[in-house]
Amino acid sequence: MKKTFTRREVLGLGIGAAILGGCSHAVPVSTPKVEAEPAPVWKFPWDYRTLDIKTTQERAYNAHFKSGCMYGVFEAIVGQVAEKLGKPYTDFPFQLSSYGGGGVAGWGTLCGACNGAAMAISMFFQDKTRNAIINEIFTWYETTALPIFIPGKPVKVAVDYKMPTSTANSTLCHLSINRWVNASKLEAFSPERGERCARLVSDTAGFAADLLNKNAEKAFIPTKEMSDKAKNCLSCHGQGKKAVDEPEVAGKMFCTACHPYTHR
Amino acid sequence: MKKTFTRREVLGLGIGAAILGGCSHAVPVSTPKVEAEPAPVWKFPWDYRTLDIKTTQERAYNAHFKSGCMYGVFEAIVGQVAEKLGKPYTDFPFQLSSYGGGGVAGWGTLCGACNGAAMAISMFFQDKTRNAIINEIFTWYETTALPIFIPGKPVKVAVDYKMPTSTANSTLCHLSINRWVNASKLEAFSPERGERCARLVSDTAGFAADLLNKNAEKAFIPTKEMSDKAKNCLSCHGQGKKAVDEPEVAGKMFCTACHPYTHR
Repeated sequence: MKKTFTRREVLGLGIGAAILGGCSHAVPVSTPKVEAEPAPVWKFPWDYRTLDIKTTQERAYNAHFKSGCMYGVFEAIVGQVAEKLGKPYTDFPFQLSSYGGGGVAGWGTLCGACNGAAMAISMFFQDKTRNAIINEIFTWYETTALPIFIPGKPVKVAVDYKMPTSTANSTLCHLSINRWVNASKLEAFSPERGERCARLVSDTAGFAADLLNKNAEKAFIPTKEMSDKAKNCLSCHGQGKKAVDEPEVAGKMFCTACHPYTHR
Repeated sequence: MKKTFTRREVLGLGIGAAILGGCSHAVPVSTPKVEAEPAPVWKFPWDYRTLDIKTTQERAYNAHFKSGCMYGVFEAIVGQVAEKLGKPYTDFPFQLSSYGGGGVAGWGTLCGACNGAAMAISMFFQDKTRNAIINEIFTWYETTALPIFIPGKPVKVAVDYKMPTSTANSTLCHLSINRWVNASKLEAFSPERGERCARLVSDTAGFAADLLNKNAEKAFIPTKEMSDKAKNCLSCHGQGKKAVDEPEVAGKMFCTACHPYTHR
Protein backbone atom coordinates (compact mmCIF):
# COMPACT_ATOMS: atom_id res chain seq x y z
CA MET A 1 0.00 0.00 0.00
CA LYS A 2 1.22 3.44 -0.91
CA LYS A 3 1.47 5.43 2.37
CA THR A 4 0.44 9.05 2.08
CA PHE A 5 1.00 12.01 4.51
CA THR A 6 -1.06 15.05 5.35
CA ARG A 7 0.32 18.62 5.06
CA ARG A 8 0.61 18.76 8.90
CA GLU A 9 2.52 15.47 9.02
CA VAL A 10 4.91 16.68 6.30
CA LEU A 11 5.64 19.88 8.18
CA GLY A 12 6.45 17.90 11.33
CA LEU A 13 8.71 15.53 9.39
CA GLY A 14 10.51 18.46 7.78
CA ILE A 15 11.36 19.98 11.13
CA GLY A 16 12.35 16.55 12.48
CA ALA A 17 14.63 15.98 9.49
CA ALA A 18 16.28 19.35 9.99
CA ILE A 19 16.93 18.59 13.67
CA LEU A 20 18.13 15.03 13.01
CA GLY A 21 20.51 16.43 10.41
CA GLY A 22 22.45 18.02 13.25
CA CYS A 23 21.34 21.56 12.45
CA SER A 24 21.03 24.44 14.82
CA HIS A 25 18.38 26.22 12.72
CA ALA A 26 14.72 25.20 12.79
CA VAL A 27 12.88 25.21 9.45
CA PRO A 28 11.44 28.70 8.94
CA VAL A 29 7.67 28.37 9.40
CA SER A 30 6.18 31.78 8.72
CA THR A 31 8.05 33.29 11.72
CA PRO A 32 10.34 36.27 10.96
CA LYS A 33 13.93 35.14 10.31
CA VAL A 34 16.35 36.26 13.04
CA GLU A 35 19.98 36.51 11.89
CA ALA A 36 21.97 35.30 14.86
CA GLU A 37 25.52 36.66 15.27
CA PRO A 38 28.03 33.84 14.75
CA ALA A 39 29.50 32.74 18.07
CA PRO A 40 32.98 34.08 18.88
CA VAL A 41 35.78 31.75 17.85
CA TRP A 42 37.08 31.66 21.40
CA LYS A 43 36.82 33.58 24.59
CA PHE A 44 39.72 35.78 25.60
CA PRO A 45 41.75 35.57 27.77
CA TRP A 46 41.97 31.81 27.41
CA ASP A 47 41.53 29.47 30.37
CA TYR A 48 44.86 28.11 31.55
CA ARG A 49 45.51 24.38 31.94
CA THR A 50 48.25 23.02 34.19
CA LEU A 51 51.34 21.97 32.24
CA ASP A 52 54.04 19.42 32.92
CA ILE A 53 57.30 21.35 33.30
CA LYS A 54 59.64 18.78 31.77
CA THR A 55 57.34 18.35 28.74
CA THR A 56 57.15 22.13 28.36
CA GLN A 57 60.93 22.45 28.47
CA GLU A 58 61.44 19.77 25.84
CA ARG A 59 58.75 21.23 23.60
CA ALA A 60 60.30 24.71 23.85
CA TYR A 61 63.75 23.34 23.03
CA ASN A 62 62.45 21.68 19.87
CA ALA A 63 60.19 24.61 18.90
CA HIS A 64 63.19 26.95 19.11
CA PHE A 65 64.88 25.03 16.31
CA LYS A 66 61.71 25.33 14.22
CA SER A 67 61.02 29.09 14.45
CA GLY A 68 63.30 30.76 16.98
CA CYS A 69 63.35 31.85 20.58
CA MET A 70 60.13 33.84 20.94
CA TYR A 71 58.16 31.12 19.14
CA GLY A 72 59.89 28.49 21.27
CA VAL A 73 58.58 29.85 24.57
CA PHE A 74 55.20 30.99 23.23
CA GLU A 75 54.35 27.79 21.37
CA ALA A 76 55.53 25.47 24.14
CA ILE A 77 53.13 27.08 26.61
CA VAL A 78 50.18 28.28 24.53
CA GLY A 79 50.33 25.42 22.04
CA GLN A 80 50.08 22.87 24.82
CA VAL A 81 47.18 24.67 26.51
CA ALA A 82 45.44 24.89 23.11
CA GLU A 83 45.71 21.12 22.75
CA LYS A 84 44.10 20.69 26.16
CA LEU A 85 41.30 23.15 25.27
CA GLY A 86 40.78 21.63 21.79
CA LYS A 87 39.25 23.31 18.74
CA PRO A 88 39.20 26.18 17.86
CA TYR A 89 42.10 27.03 20.20
CA THR A 90 44.48 24.80 18.27
CA ASP A 91 43.84 27.01 15.21
CA PHE A 92 45.62 29.97 16.81
CA PRO A 93 48.44 31.15 14.50
CA PHE A 94 51.34 30.37 16.85
CA GLN A 95 53.78 31.14 14.05
CA LEU A 96 52.90 34.82 14.56
CA SER A 97 55.32 34.87 17.50
CA SER A 98 58.34 34.00 15.38
CA TYR A 99 58.97 37.71 14.67
CA GLY A 100 60.74 38.10 18.03
CA GLY A 101 63.68 35.84 17.15
CA GLY A 102 67.13 37.30 17.92
CA GLY A 103 65.62 40.24 19.80
CA VAL A 104 63.04 40.96 17.02
CA ALA A 105 64.17 40.13 13.49
CA GLY A 106 67.80 39.88 14.65
CA TRP A 107 67.91 43.39 16.10
CA GLY A 108 69.20 42.26 19.48
CA THR A 109 66.55 44.21 21.45
CA LEU A 110 64.30 42.34 23.93
CA CYS A 111 65.32 38.68 24.26
CA GLY A 112 62.77 36.59 22.36
CA ALA A 113 62.45 34.19 25.29
CA CYS A 114 61.28 37.11 27.45
CA ASN A 115 59.04 38.53 24.70
CA GLY A 116 57.53 35.10 24.06
CA ALA A 117 56.93 34.45 27.75
CA ALA A 118 55.24 37.84 28.17
CA MET A 119 53.04 37.20 25.12
CA ALA A 120 52.16 33.73 26.45
CA ILE A 121 51.15 35.11 29.87
CA SER A 122 49.02 37.70 28.07
CA MET A 123 46.93 34.90 26.49
CA PHE A 124 45.68 33.97 29.97
CA PHE A 125 45.88 37.13 32.05
CA GLN A 126 45.68 40.86 31.58
CA ASP A 127 46.70 43.80 33.71
CA LYS A 128 47.94 43.15 37.28
CA THR A 129 48.25 39.36 37.23
CA ARG A 130 49.95 39.44 33.81
CA ASN A 131 52.39 42.11 34.89
CA ALA A 132 53.19 40.41 38.21
CA ILE A 133 54.07 37.17 36.42
CA ILE A 134 56.12 39.03 33.79
CA ASN A 135 58.00 40.83 36.58
CA GLU A 136 59.00 37.49 38.11
CA ILE A 137 60.14 36.06 34.78
CA PHE A 138 62.15 39.11 33.73
CA THR A 139 63.85 39.46 37.11
CA TRP A 140 64.66 35.73 37.18
CA TYR A 141 66.04 36.01 33.64
CA GLU A 142 68.29 38.94 34.55
CA THR A 143 69.74 37.37 37.68
CA THR A 144 70.02 33.61 37.01
CA ALA A 145 72.99 31.72 35.56
CA LEU A 146 71.57 30.15 32.39
CA PRO A 147 71.11 27.78 30.65
CA ILE A 148 70.18 25.03 33.11
CA PHE A 149 68.20 22.62 30.88
CA ILE A 150 70.10 19.66 29.42
CA PRO A 151 68.37 18.00 26.46
CA GLY A 152 68.47 14.24 25.96
CA LYS A 153 69.52 14.70 22.34
CA PRO A 154 71.37 18.02 21.85
CA VAL A 155 70.90 19.49 18.36
CA LYS A 156 74.04 21.61 17.95
CA VAL A 157 76.61 20.03 20.28
CA ALA A 158 77.78 16.60 21.38
CA VAL A 159 75.76 14.85 24.05
CA ASP A 160 78.61 15.22 26.58
CA TYR A 161 79.21 18.95 25.84
CA LYS A 162 79.66 20.92 29.06
CA MET A 163 77.57 24.03 28.49
CA PRO A 164 79.01 27.25 30.01
CA THR A 165 76.49 29.41 31.88
CA SER A 166 76.23 33.17 32.32
CA THR A 167 74.02 35.68 34.11
CA ALA A 168 72.58 38.18 31.62
CA ASN A 169 72.09 41.17 33.94
CA SER A 170 69.70 42.32 31.22
CA THR A 171 66.59 41.24 29.32
CA LEU A 172 68.17 42.42 26.06
CA CYS A 173 69.18 39.79 23.51
CA HIS A 174 72.57 41.11 22.46
CA LEU A 175 73.66 41.74 26.06
CA SER A 176 72.49 38.31 27.16
CA ILE A 177 74.42 36.72 24.30
CA ASN A 178 77.47 38.86 25.01
CA ARG A 179 77.61 37.69 28.66
CA TRP A 180 77.61 34.12 27.49
CA VAL A 181 80.25 34.87 24.83
CA ASN A 182 82.44 36.35 27.55
CA ALA A 183 81.90 33.35 29.82
CA SER A 184 82.47 30.74 27.13
CA LYS A 185 85.15 32.49 25.02
CA LEU A 186 83.16 31.30 22.00
CA GLU A 187 81.65 33.25 19.08
CA ALA A 188 78.23 34.92 19.13
CA PHE A 189 77.36 33.10 15.91
CA SER A 190 78.78 29.71 16.92
CA PRO A 191 76.72 26.49 17.05
CA GLU A 192 77.38 26.36 20.80
CA ARG A 193 75.72 29.77 21.22
CA GLY A 194 72.73 28.56 19.19
CA GLU A 195 72.51 25.57 21.51
CA ARG A 196 72.79 27.88 24.53
CA CYS A 197 69.85 29.99 23.36
CA ALA A 198 67.68 26.91 22.70
CA ARG A 199 68.36 25.71 26.26
CA LEU A 200 67.68 29.17 27.69
CA VAL A 201 64.35 29.18 25.79
CA SER A 202 63.60 25.86 27.41
CA ASP A 203 64.45 27.24 30.87
CA THR A 204 62.28 30.32 30.34
CA ALA A 205 59.29 28.29 29.13
CA GLY A 206 59.62 25.96 32.12
CA PHE A 207 59.95 28.82 34.60
CA ALA A 208 56.95 30.65 33.13
CA ALA A 209 54.81 27.49 33.07
CA ASP A 210 55.72 26.81 36.70
CA LEU A 211 54.50 30.30 37.68
CA LEU A 212 51.30 29.79 35.68
CA ASN A 213 50.78 26.41 37.38
CA LYS A 214 51.31 27.96 40.80
CA ASN A 215 48.91 30.78 39.92
CA ALA A 216 46.27 28.23 38.87
CA GLU A 217 46.66 26.60 42.30
CA LYS A 218 46.42 30.03 43.97
CA ALA A 219 49.98 29.48 45.16
CA PHE A 220 51.69 32.22 43.13
CA ILE A 221 53.09 34.88 45.45
CA PRO A 222 54.82 37.75 43.60
CA THR A 223 58.20 38.35 45.20
CA LYS A 224 59.87 40.63 42.66
CA GLU A 225 58.87 43.79 40.87
CA MET A 226 62.39 44.24 39.51
CA SER A 227 65.95 43.34 40.49
CA ASP A 228 67.38 44.72 43.74
CA LYS A 229 69.91 46.70 41.68
CA ALA A 230 67.20 48.44 39.63
CA LYS A 231 65.20 49.04 42.81
CA ASN A 232 68.22 50.74 44.35
CA CYS A 233 68.65 53.04 41.33
CA LEU A 234 64.96 53.82 41.07
CA SER A 235 64.78 54.72 44.75
CA CYS A 236 66.16 58.08 43.54
CA HIS A 237 65.52 57.99 39.78
CA GLY A 238 62.03 56.46 39.74
CA GLN A 239 58.61 58.03 39.41
CA GLY A 240 58.14 60.94 41.82
CA LYS A 241 61.69 60.57 43.20
CA LYS A 242 63.56 62.85 40.90
CA ALA A 243 67.29 63.01 41.57
CA VAL A 244 68.87 66.44 41.10
CA ASP A 245 69.38 67.21 37.40
CA GLU A 246 68.29 63.70 36.42
CA PRO A 247 65.01 62.80 34.77
CA GLU A 248 62.67 60.17 36.15
CA VAL A 249 63.23 56.79 34.54
CA ALA A 250 60.24 54.91 33.13
CA GLY A 251 61.46 51.33 33.37
CA LYS A 252 62.53 48.38 35.52
CA MET A 253 65.57 47.19 33.59
CA PHE A 254 68.86 46.29 35.24
CA CYS A 255 70.28 49.85 35.09
CA THR A 256 73.99 49.21 35.60
CA ALA A 257 74.19 46.92 32.57
CA CYS A 258 74.44 50.13 30.48
CA HIS A 259 74.76 52.93 33.03
CA PRO A 260 77.94 52.68 35.12
CA TYR A 261 77.30 53.45 38.77
CA THR A 262 78.94 56.89 39.00
CA HIS A 263 77.43 58.44 42.11
CA ARG A 264 78.96 61.60 43.39
CA MET B 1 -9.31 19.21 -0.76
CA LYS B 2 -6.84 17.62 1.62
CA LYS B 3 -3.45 17.44 -0.25
CA THR B 4 -1.46 14.27 0.47
CA PHE B 5 2.21 13.38 -0.25
CA THR B 6 3.99 10.17 -1.20
CA ARG B 7 6.94 8.71 0.77
CA ARG B 8 9.32 9.88 -2.01
CA GLU B 9 7.88 13.40 -1.93
CA VAL B 10 8.26 13.55 1.86
CA LEU B 11 11.91 12.48 1.69
CA GLY B 12 12.58 15.24 -0.86
CA LEU B 13 10.79 17.81 1.30
CA GLY B 14 12.75 16.72 4.36
CA ILE B 15 16.08 17.30 2.62
CA GLY B 16 14.76 20.56 1.16
CA ALA B 17 13.67 21.73 4.62
CA ALA B 18 17.06 20.90 6.03
CA ILE B 19 18.79 22.89 3.29
CA LEU B 20 16.34 25.82 3.51
CA GLY B 21 16.95 25.91 7.25
CA GLY B 22 20.46 27.11 6.48
CA CYS B 23 22.16 23.86 7.43
CA SER B 24 25.36 22.45 6.08
CA HIS B 25 24.41 18.85 6.85
CA ALA B 26 22.11 16.86 4.57
CA VAL B 27 19.54 14.67 6.31
CA PRO B 28 21.17 11.30 6.98
CA VAL B 29 19.48 8.82 4.65
CA SER B 30 21.02 5.41 5.32
CA THR B 31 24.49 6.61 4.12
CA PRO B 32 27.43 6.15 6.56
CA LYS B 33 28.14 9.30 8.58
CA VAL B 34 31.52 10.87 7.69
CA GLU B 35 33.01 13.05 10.45
CA ALA B 36 34.67 15.93 8.57
CA GLU B 37 37.54 17.79 10.26
CA PRO B 38 36.37 21.31 11.15
CA ALA B 39 37.80 23.84 8.70
CA PRO B 40 40.69 25.96 9.99
CA VAL B 41 39.55 29.20 11.57
CA TRP B 42 41.71 31.21 9.20
CA LYS B 43 44.68 30.83 6.99
CA PHE B 44 48.00 32.21 8.18
CA PRO B 45 49.67 34.51 7.33
CA TRP B 46 46.60 36.66 6.69
CA ASP B 47 46.06 38.41 3.38
CA TYR B 48 46.81 42.11 3.64
CA ARG B 49 44.32 44.78 2.59
CA THR B 50 45.39 48.33 1.70
CA LEU B 51 44.76 50.79 4.53
CA ASP B 52 44.09 54.50 4.58
CA ILE B 53 47.01 56.10 6.41
CA LYS B 54 45.11 58.95 8.11
CA THR B 55 42.43 56.51 9.34
CA THR B 56 45.15 54.18 10.63
CA GLN B 57 46.88 57.01 12.48
CA GLU B 58 43.66 58.13 14.15
CA ARG B 59 42.70 54.60 15.09
CA ALA B 60 46.14 53.97 16.61
CA TYR B 61 45.94 57.20 18.60
CA ASN B 62 42.59 56.21 20.09
CA ALA B 63 43.59 52.56 20.61
CA HIS B 64 46.65 53.69 22.57
CA PHE B 65 44.40 55.28 25.16
CA LYS B 66 42.42 52.04 25.42
CA SER B 67 45.22 49.50 25.95
CA GLY B 68 48.63 51.08 25.46
CA CYS B 69 51.28 51.53 22.82
CA MET B 70 51.82 48.01 21.50
CA TYR B 71 48.07 47.43 21.26
CA GLY B 72 47.68 50.85 19.59
CA VAL B 73 49.87 50.00 16.62
CA PHE B 74 48.86 46.34 16.40
CA GLU B 75 45.11 46.91 16.61
CA ALA B 76 45.08 49.87 14.25
CA ILE B 77 46.67 47.80 11.49
CA VAL B 78 45.49 44.25 12.11
CA GLY B 79 42.06 45.25 13.43
CA GLN B 80 41.34 47.22 10.27
CA VAL B 81 42.50 44.42 7.96
CA ALA B 82 40.36 41.99 9.99
CA GLU B 83 37.32 44.18 9.35
CA LYS B 84 38.05 44.09 5.63
CA LEU B 85 38.49 40.29 5.70
CA GLY B 86 35.39 39.76 7.88
CA LYS B 87 34.64 36.77 10.11
CA PRO B 88 36.46 34.89 11.61
CA TYR B 89 39.37 37.38 11.34
CA THR B 90 37.54 39.92 13.49
CA ASP B 91 37.55 37.34 16.30
CA PHE B 92 41.31 37.56 16.70
CA PRO B 93 42.17 38.48 20.32
CA PHE B 94 43.79 41.83 19.59
CA GLN B 95 43.93 42.55 23.33
CA LEU B 96 46.74 39.99 23.49
CA SER B 97 49.14 42.69 22.27
CA SER B 98 48.55 44.95 25.26
CA TYR B 99 51.35 43.19 27.19
CA GLY B 100 53.96 45.33 25.41
CA GLY B 101 52.84 48.62 26.94
CA GLY B 102 55.67 50.73 28.40
CA GLY B 103 58.35 48.47 26.94
CA VAL B 104 56.57 45.27 28.17
CA ALA B 105 54.62 45.62 31.40
CA GLY B 106 56.34 48.93 32.16
CA TRP B 107 59.87 47.49 32.00
CA GLY B 108 61.12 50.09 29.52
CA THR B 109 62.63 47.49 27.16
CA LEU B 110 61.55 47.44 23.48
CA CYS B 111 59.20 50.35 22.69
CA GLY B 112 55.66 48.98 22.41
CA ALA B 113 55.10 50.86 19.15
CA CYS B 114 58.02 48.93 17.63
CA ASN B 115 56.96 45.62 19.20
CA GLY B 116 53.36 46.14 18.01
CA ALA B 117 54.45 47.07 14.50
CA ALA B 118 56.70 44.00 14.28
CA MET B 119 53.88 41.76 15.52
CA ALA B 120 51.47 43.33 13.03
CA ILE B 121 53.86 42.76 10.10
CA SER B 122 54.20 39.14 11.27
CA MET B 123 50.44 38.61 10.74
CA PHE B 124 50.95 39.12 7.00
CA PHE B 125 54.54 38.10 6.27
CA GLN B 126 57.16 35.76 7.60
CA ASP B 127 60.92 35.54 7.18
CA LYS B 128 62.61 37.87 4.68
CA THR B 129 59.72 40.21 3.81
CA ARG B 130 58.75 40.52 7.46
CA ASN B 131 62.30 41.27 8.53
CA ALA B 132 62.89 43.78 5.71
CA ILE B 133 59.78 45.76 6.71
CA ILE B 134 60.73 45.59 10.40
CA ASN B 135 64.22 46.88 9.54
CA GLU B 136 62.72 49.93 7.81
CA ILE B 137 60.38 50.67 10.72
CA PHE B 138 63.02 50.27 13.44
CA THR B 139 65.60 52.38 11.57
CA TRP B 140 62.99 55.08 10.86
CA TYR B 141 61.99 55.02 14.55
CA GLU B 142 65.58 55.43 15.73
CA THR B 143 66.43 58.32 13.40
CA THR B 144 63.25 60.41 13.04
CA ALA B 145 62.15 63.37 15.16
CA LEU B 146 58.83 62.24 16.65
CA PRO B 147 55.95 62.69 17.17
CA ILE B 148 54.63 64.17 13.92
CA PHE B 149 50.91 63.30 14.11
CA ILE B 150 48.59 66.02 15.42
CA PRO B 151 45.16 64.73 16.52
CA GLY B 152 42.01 66.75 15.94
CA LYS B 153 40.99 66.31 19.56
CA PRO B 154 44.04 65.78 21.81
CA VAL B 155 43.29 63.64 24.87
CA LYS B 156 45.95 64.82 27.35
CA VAL B 157 46.82 68.37 26.25
CA ALA B 158 45.10 71.51 24.95
CA VAL B 159 44.26 71.62 21.24
CA ASP B 160 46.88 74.36 20.66
CA TYR B 161 49.65 72.58 22.62
CA LYS B 162 52.96 72.75 20.75
CA MET B 163 54.37 69.23 21.06
CA PRO B 164 58.17 69.01 21.44
CA THR B 165 59.84 66.39 19.26
CA SER B 166 62.93 64.21 19.82
CA THR B 167 64.95 61.60 17.99
CA ALA B 168 65.15 58.41 20.03
CA ASN B 169 68.47 57.02 18.72
CA SER B 170 67.13 53.74 20.12
CA THR B 171 64.19 51.37 19.86
CA LEU B 172 64.09 51.04 23.65
CA CYS B 173 61.15 52.56 25.50
CA HIS B 174 62.94 54.20 28.40
CA LEU B 175 65.62 55.74 26.16
CA SER B 176 63.02 57.01 23.70
CA ILE B 177 61.08 58.60 26.57
CA ASN B 178 64.26 60.01 28.07
CA ARG B 179 65.20 61.78 24.80
CA TRP B 180 61.79 63.43 24.76
CA VAL B 181 62.07 64.34 28.45
CA ASN B 182 65.42 66.03 27.71
CA ALA B 183 63.95 67.88 24.71
CA SER B 184 60.78 69.01 26.47
CA LYS B 185 62.13 69.57 30.02
CA LEU B 186 58.97 67.80 31.19
CA GLU B 187 58.50 64.74 33.40
CA ALA B 188 58.56 61.13 32.18
CA PHE B 189 55.23 60.54 33.90
CA SER B 190 53.57 63.84 32.81
CA PRO B 191 50.33 64.00 30.78
CA GLU B 192 52.33 65.64 27.97
CA ARG B 193 54.59 62.58 27.76
CA GLY B 194 51.53 60.33 27.65
CA GLU B 195 50.23 62.44 24.78
CA ARG B 196 53.63 62.24 23.06
CA CYS B 197 53.62 58.44 23.20
CA ALA B 198 50.07 58.24 21.80
CA ARG B 199 51.13 60.43 18.86
CA LEU B 200 54.30 58.39 18.33
CA VAL B 201 52.12 55.26 18.28
CA SER B 202 50.02 56.95 15.62
CA ASP B 203 53.13 57.81 13.57
CA THR B 204 54.48 54.27 13.82
CA ALA B 205 51.16 52.69 12.78
CA GLY B 206 50.93 55.08 9.81
CA PHE B 207 54.52 54.46 8.75
CA ALA B 208 54.12 50.67 9.00
CA ALA B 209 50.80 50.72 7.10
CA ASP B 210 52.40 52.82 4.37
CA LEU B 211 55.17 50.23 3.95
CA LEU B 212 52.58 47.42 3.88
CA ASN B 213 50.57 49.35 1.25
CA LYS B 214 53.68 49.87 -0.86
CA ASN B 215 54.56 46.20 -0.52
CA ALA B 216 51.05 45.23 -1.66
CA GLU B 217 51.59 47.38 -4.76
CA LYS B 218 55.02 45.76 -5.29
CA ALA B 219 56.51 49.20 -4.67
CA PHE B 220 58.31 48.47 -1.39
CA ILE B 221 62.06 48.76 -1.84
CA PRO B 222 64.07 48.01 1.33
CA THR B 223 66.58 50.81 1.84
CA LYS B 224 67.76 50.15 5.41
CA GLU B 225 68.97 47.14 7.25
CA MET B 226 69.98 49.27 10.23
CA SER B 227 71.09 52.86 10.94
CA ASP B 228 74.32 54.13 9.33
CA LYS B 229 75.80 54.45 12.84
CA ALA B 230 75.15 50.80 13.69
CA LYS B 231 76.43 49.78 10.26
CA ASN B 232 79.65 51.65 10.94
CA CYS B 233 80.14 49.88 14.30
CA LEU B 234 79.24 46.46 12.92
CA SER B 235 81.70 46.86 10.04
CA CYS B 236 84.26 45.76 12.66
CA HIS B 237 82.11 44.26 15.43
CA GLY B 238 79.57 42.35 13.32
CA GLN B 239 79.35 38.70 12.33
CA GLY B 240 82.63 37.40 10.93
CA LYS B 241 84.37 40.77 11.43
CA LYS B 242 85.74 40.35 14.89
CA ALA B 243 87.58 43.37 16.22
CA VAL B 244 90.65 42.60 18.35
CA ASP B 245 89.64 41.52 21.86
CA GLU B 246 85.99 42.34 21.16
CA PRO B 247 83.23 39.79 20.65
CA GLU B 248 80.96 39.80 17.60
CA VAL B 249 77.73 41.64 18.28
CA ALA B 250 74.44 39.94 17.45
CA GLY B 251 72.19 42.92 16.82
CA LYS B 252 71.32 46.00 14.75
CA MET B 253 70.58 48.49 17.51
CA PHE B 254 71.93 52.04 17.51
CA CYS B 255 75.17 51.15 19.33
CA THR B 256 76.30 54.56 20.56
CA ALA B 257 73.10 55.13 22.52
CA CYS B 258 74.68 52.98 25.25
CA HIS B 259 78.27 52.40 24.11
CA PRO B 260 80.31 55.61 23.88
CA TYR B 261 82.46 55.72 20.75
CA THR B 262 85.92 55.19 22.32
CA HIS B 263 88.07 54.01 19.45
CA ARG B 264 91.76 53.84 20.05
